[in-house]
Amino acid sequence: MTAEIVTAAVLVIGDEILSGRTKDKNIGYIADYMTALGIDLKEVRVVSDDESAIVSALNALRGAYDYVFTTGGIGPTHDDITADCIAKAFGVELEFHPEAIAIMKERIAKIGGELNEARMRMTRIPKGGTLVHNKVSGAPGFWIGNVITMAGIPAVMQAMLDEVAPKLKTGVKMLSESIRADAREGDVGTELGLIAKAHPDAIIGSYPFMDEKGGPNTNIVVRSRDPQRLGEVKAAVEAMLTRVRAQLAAG
Amino acid sequence: MTAEIVTAAVLVIGDEILSGRTKDKNIGYIADYMTALGIDLKEVRVVSDDESAIVSALNALRGAYDYVFTTGGIGPTHDDITADCIAKAFGVELEFHPEAIAIMKERIAKIGGELNEARMRMTRIPKGGTLVHNKVSGAPGFWIGNVITMAGIPAVMQAMLDEVAPKLKTGVKMLSESIRADAREGDVGTELGLIAKAHPDAIIGSYPFMDEKGGPNTNIVVRSRDPQRLGEVKAAVEAMLTRVRAQLAAG
Repeated sequence: MTAEIVTAAVLVIGDEILSGRTKDKNIGYIADYMTALGIDLKEVRVVSDDESAIVSALNALRGAYDYVFTTGGIGPTHDDITADCIAKAFGVELEFHPEAIAIMKERIAKIGGELNEARMRMTRIPKGGTLVHNKVSGAPGFWIGNVITMAGIPAVMQAMLDEVAPKLKTGVKMLSESIRADAREGDVGTELGLIAKAHPDAIIGSYPFMDEKGGPNTNIVVRSRDPQRLGEVKAAVEAMLTRVRAQLAAG
Repeated sequence: MTAEIVTAAVLVIGDEILSGRTKDKNIGYIADYMTALGIDLKEVRVVSDDESAIVSALNALRGAYDYVFTTGGIGPTHDDITADCIAKAFGVELEFHPEAIAIMKERIAKIGGELNEARMRMTRIPKGGTLVHNKVSGAPGFWIGNVITMAGIPAVMQAMLDEVAPKLKTGVKMLSESIRADAREGDVGTELGLIAKAHPDAIIGSYPFMDEKGGPNTNIVVRSRDPQRLGEVKAAVEAMLTRVRAQLAAG
């Protein structure tokens, strides 16, 4: 089975994440979202509010993956430089976008305020980009090339992701099964390695955890795009676990 | 004032973070820890359990920053390939480390199990590396060159960080003050930009939030390594806020 694979990366932009002041909540959300869509999230980077750091990370990621989702740095203040950096990375001008201005004016009419320089900053979009609307705060993100630029505030980012999701190209979904080992990772690791070697087209992960009795336990996660292959590998893991647990019980 | 600046990056290794199955808790913890120590966290990357992805990210980061902290991929199973990748990046062999074997044997004597191939995997350390002990689960991480390799399980990672912290070179601490604007970001952004331009040696961040009345509000965070300069910029921001709030009240 040849499955089309669609890949993505996330670029989180913001000093506040790197200083620890703000704890990122977007990476895990986007990871779940991509898995549900059938897009493989392959890499995440977090960089500071620094032009050269943002531009070079963006260029590396947009060259390597089908989509790049950025979060953060699209507000009205001087430290919001994401739009400037994306325009620079693409070698295009930033332009005041008529629809973004219209949205901003409508919003100001509703909640008050002045269409000042700071708020006008938020209507600048790299030339050739299209708006990504958001139903939470109004202020749009944008989409240019394979880069989708979203807000950093989780509720706004989530609204923007809902907006773009129907337009994304998706691949065949990665399916997964989680199997509780009821054994320590060190007890199953050797045999699990043999199963992984025998099934190179499936992905087998092993994740230790403390179980409800407070003892070390292991979740084994099998992943494949092919449901039949997934079933075969799951069966192989379960047979191995039955054997290993019998050996452990026999001492 | 010339302050010595020490920089760091974090490399999170693991398919489970990128698939969304596991939500990372280490980035925010390390960010807070570095800020407290006086080390500037400059970049974070998350990559999958893929040799070339790990090696190339590691080489990029260790060349650019004073320290690189890795998390994840040092367990006993086939998908734990971090030690292999770090050895490859440094161009050295992986060796069974006598002290790591002794720790493993001691642990097995206490909690049972067999010193099998899987558990022996965890005693392999890149040649030239030193162990990073952990008081939680016993199994050590390691430190080679400017790279510190730690477990992915938060409690274990935290124990390892405590172990290495006293040995890290640190810079002059970045100080910060948070000022509540009681105004919307769009109302203060223009003037805040002027203050930032007038004080290029301080870092001024602006973070919108919803306050207890449910209205849009803003925290302004001023950062500097020089306490006097921090006080000056804070005073400038407060004076500006008083002025802007008076203008807003006047309608």
